[in-house]
This record gives sequence, C-alpha cells and structure tokens, in this order.
Amino acid sequence: MGHHMTRDTMRALELAAYDGRLRAVEKPVPRPGPGQVLVRIAAAPVNPSDLKFIVGAYGLRKPLPVVPGIEGSGTVVAAGPGLMARLQVGKRVACLAPESGDGTWAEYMVADARRCIPLRKELTLEQGAMMVVNPWTAWALVDVARRRGHRAAVHTAAAGALGRMLVRLGLRLGFPIIHIVRRAEQAEALRGLGARAVLVSSDGDFDARLAEACRTLGATVAFDAVAGEMTGRVLAAMPPGSTAIVYGSLSEGPVTANASQFIYEDKRIEGFWLSRWAAGRGLVGRARLAMGLQKHLATDFATEVRARVPLEQAAEAIEDYRRHMTGGKVLIIPGELEGS
Amino acid sequence: MGHHMTRDTMRALELAAYDGRLRAVEKPVPRPGPGQVLVRIAAAPVNPSDLKFIVGAYGLRKPLPVVPGIEGSGTVVAAGPGLMARLQVGKRVACLAPESGDGTWAEYMVADARRCIPLRKELTLEQGAMMVVNPWTAWALVDVARRRGHRAAVHTAAAGALGRMLVRLGLRLGFPIIHIVRRAEQAEALRGLGARAVLVSSDGDFDARLAEACRTLGATVAFDAVAGEMTGRVLAAMPPGSTAIVYGSLSEGPVTANASQFIYEDKRIEGFWLSRWAAGRGLVGRARLAMGLQKHLATDFATEVRARVPLEQAAEAIEDYRRHMTGGKVLIIPGELEGS
Repeated sequence: MGHHMTRDTMRALELAAYDGRLRAVEKPVPRPGPGQVLVRIAAAPVNPSDLKFIVGAYGLRKPLPVVPGIEGSGTVVAAGPGLMARLQVGKRVACLAPESGDGTWAEYMVADARRCIPLRKELTLEQGAMMVVNPWTAWALVDVARRRGHRAAVHTAAAGALGRMLVRLGLRLGFPIIHIVRRAEQAEALRGLGARAVLVSSDGDFDARLAEACRTLGATVAFDAVAGEMTGRVLAAMPPGSTAIVYGSLSEGPVTANASQFIYEDKRIEGFWLSRWAAGRGLVGRARLAMGLQKHLATDFATEVRARVPLEQAAEAIEDYRRHMTGGKVLIIPGELEGS
Repeated sequence: MGHHMTRDTMRALELAAYDGRLRAVEKPVPRPGPGQVLVRIAAAPVNPSDLKFIVGAYGLRKPLPVVPGIEGSGTVVAAGPGLMARLQVGKRVACLAPESGDGTWAEYMVADARRCIPLRKELTLEQGAMMVVNPWTAWALVDVARRRGHRAAVHTAAAGALGRMLVRLGLRLGFPIIHIVRRAEQAEALRGLGARAVLVSSDGDFDARLAEACRTLGATVAFDAVAGEMTGRVLAAMPPGSTAIVYGSLSEGPVTANASQFIYEDKRIEGFWLSRWAAGRGLVGRARLAMGLQKHLATDFATEVRARVPLEQAAEAIEDYRRHMTGGKVLIIPGELEGS
C-alpha cells in the first residue's frame, strides 16, 4: 500500500443510532481502494452540520454504525491504486469524509483523493482542519449574492465562526453585510473586527432598525442560519423582491413567514447547502477555489478554537459546543497533540 | 360627457377603516377624466382578495373612505377625453377598479379605459363580472408552471371557484394537477368534473398519499392558496428541487416549513400576485389574453354563483361568504337585477 506502517486497529468515535450519542470504540484501520488515500487524522472540528448529522437531521444519512466528522486534516500515510492518490502519500492535506462510509472523527480515515486538498506549507494542520466547511460557505454565499446583483446582505448568525469570516470577507470585498447577533457583547466583538452594521436581535427596536439598515444599504438578500421566526422577520425587514437563503437552522424551529410577503411583496425563500453548491462547480472549479481560499486561511478565514480534545473526551465537548455555539470551535485531536 | 343621463348621486358600499365593516352610503356619481370611462355596474363578485382588502391585508391600501370591489361588469355610460375611452361608450365591459380610488361595489365606477374589456355578445354581464381575477389567475399559474418545465402541479384550495377552473384547465391542456380539498364531499364534486387526482387533507394518510401522487405524476410545483402549515406539508411531499407558489392565505396563518427542505432538498417558496403578473405582460399581452380567455368563459372558466344580493344586503352576504368560501360566489348587484 505505502511506505508507512499502519496499525491494525484504531480509536474512533462511533454513532450506533441517529440519537446523537457517541462512543469511543476500537475498530479496524480501513484500507484505501482505487483512487483513495489513507489519512492519519491530525484534527477534526465539530461543525453545526456535524451536530445535525449525528441526530439524523443532515442532508445525508449513512448506514450505521458510522464514524461522523465531515472535515479534518492530516497526513496521507498510504494510497490505493491510481496516480492522483499515490502522489499524495506523505503530504499534509485537508480532507472531507466520503459520501458513504466513515468520517474524520477517528485516528484514520479513507478519503477519495479528489476530496483531499494539499496544504500550503505555511499553514498548520489545525488551520487546515477547518479549511472547507465554513470558509467555502462564507465565500459561496457572498459569491451567489453578488452574481445575482444584490448590493448588500443580512447575516442572521453573525457571532459564530462563519459570521466572523463574513465580517472580514465583506470588508475585503466592499460588500456591505448587516450582522445580526443575539447579545450586546457579541456585537462589540464584531465591531472590534471592523463590522459597521451590527444589530442585536433581543433589542426592542430590532425589527425597525433592521428595516432601516436594509433600506439604507440596499440589502435584498439574507444569509440565514437561524431559521424559525428569524427568517420571516428578516424577510419582512427587506424591501420587496428580496430573498432569504436558509443555510442552517440553529433555532431548530420551522421557518415561518407571513404569506403576504410572498404574494404581494414578491419575496422568496430558498436554501443553500455547500455539498450541492460544490457539486455544481465541478472538479476544476473546486480545486481553483481551494487554492484561492488557502491564501486567506490565516486571515479572513481564520477560526477561533475553544478547545482541543482527545477522542475520549469528545462526546462531552460536543455537548458543551451544542449549548454554546458561539465561543469558538471544538477541535477533536484523535492522535498525539502536535507542536504546530 | 356622453349621451347617457347619469344621476348626481348613487348608492355604494363604503369602507371607513380597514376593519372589514361596510356600510351602504349615498355618494356623488364620479366623473371620468382623460382616458377614463364611467361604468354603470351590473354585477361585482366578492373574491378572497376583496376580503383581504377590506381588512387592510391586501397588497394595495387606498386612502379612506373607499368603495371596495376589485372586478365587475357593466355598461359604459360616459367617457372622458380620449379616443379609446369614447369608443367604449354604450359597450358592455368587464372592468377592474383603478389602482387608486373607488371600486366596483357601487352603482357607478370610473375606470381606466385600458382596464375595461369589451364583452363578446354571447356572454352575459354576470359572466363578465367574474372574468378576470379567477380565470386569469388560473391561467397564469398553469402558464408559469409549464414555462418553467414543471410536468405536473399540486393545488391546495381545489374546492373553490378557482379550484374548479384549474380542474377543467388541467384536463383541457393535459397538465396533471393534484387537487387538495378539505372534505370528502368536495372531492366527489371535483371528480364529477373529471378530476383524477383528488386528495382530502383531513384524511389520516393524506401526507403519504400526497407524496405518492407527486412522485407518480412528477409534480414539482404547488399553487398554494392556503398557506399556514399546508405550504410546508405540500413542500415536504414534493421531490427535491420543488417550488411552492403562494398566491393566497385562506388559513390566515403564517407559512411554516421545515428548514431542512430549503437547505438539503433545494426547495423554495415564492409568491404570485395577479397584479404583478399582469403588469409584467404589458398592454398588448393583457388584451390578447383577455380575448383568448373570453372564449372559454362559459365553459372552462365558468363560476358558480351562490347568491345575488343588492348593496344593502351585501355586508351580511360577505360575512356569510367569509365563513363558507367554497359554496359558490356572492355577486353584488348594485342596480336592477337584469334578465340575463
């Protein structure tokens, strides 16, 4: 297979039912097939999408039992047949879980070589672990909005990792974004990053101020990761003809919106899912984007880390993350903690 | 002005506040300005849009007090300056209320000559009174769906006047429609018109049967006049990539739908408003459509009438209609009942 000595078994976090309950297990180290590589996982984040996956609410359900974890980073230690796979042996990569089969919350993962992105040498494995899900989503949302001619946008979950990326990306691109947070101290943090339009949804005059900001900046699209009633409130604040793009549902409530907004004001709601968007770009488009975004990974797309935990403590840390999702990412470190 | 003797005052239904309370009043007969005609109203229906208008929930709010009534028919008895207006004097027309100013629930109305459609001689004034709002909406919804490549549709309010038109129109065009009604006897009535796919929303297995019907027929668009939870239920029953077009809100509840449908299944909700759609077609397009649809007004676009009431009894009849909207239209007859 390759030049690296791999063990026969490994530790992994496993899901036996879509009930959100994870357990640390010992299971065989998988073997890469044609076009595949074996990655020794260095770090893997817990994203909101992972929380949806483990309760069966994600867009993809895999046969059980399964190792969750959508993205991560590591070193390619073996390859199956195929030139592209073999060329990656020894390389540090960001990697995505295959569409079927085990994910990144384990010591090793088999990945499709085309779903691995070699890391630029100035990037750490920790930075590489969070290179795709949030940065690509932030970039894609702004790209979609600008291609459709929107002049400004609203973001409903601005305090999280992706929210911070959107602050920096909006400033870099000169694309105004109205950032919505739940608490005043979160607003302060975003203003510290340079954000100009930040609104606190718990303020009594929130709806009126949001409507005024939308008018002033010409915001006709919303990136909505909250769903529930927030979707309808933001839609109501935007001018006729506006669109809400739902890409998450942190509120866990169904999207609600007044019918007259659709009928008389020509407003609409649609959705965004990174997997669908990325599939629509093709292999070359994704490769170009991967290279482009890496250059800004240490700056615009930097992610704050709250905790680095071994597999054995991950279940507890994930539960903590679920309760407080805006205090930085939880990173699972399946092997030895690296010096980087 | 014209050759017809008009009185100085007339009876009209007037709204003093957007509280839904109508009163019969005596007010001056209006005078047509340039490009306008004076129509002696023969009949004017009560549509769901009118019920929204009188409580201020329609897409257009006019200065108060105002005479409601969006459509009607009558005879042009006078004209202001302008050839198009003068040519209509003496003609029987279907007419639409002006965007500002009084509507059809009165003995006389001033209309923009371009918003009057001369009636073919085989049509009665009663048929002409219901020629635009429902027939055009039915036709437009199917047209929009077919232009976008949808192969079949769902209609959520199939028991009403527009629902019956969609049954006949779908059969004529060979465009399959799944008709949703609330009660079993309504389903029987639609099957009597030839409808094949009729589902009763109060049935225990409604959602499963709707999903199966959508799969079988390839229904990827819904015409939704119910809103509330129905929008999300229909959206859930349709395949990924489907669209719900909300054009009414009979349930009076906010549209609700599970967020994952937008995110992972690429579904979307948008709206339809006849005024916006018609404005987008231009004058010639509207004229062509008006002529085309008139030919089928006595058949495909026929409307059942429940009651013909004078102005003085209209408030009561409207309240009755609000409570039972599927038993045929209420027609307001402001003047003498005609023999036709």
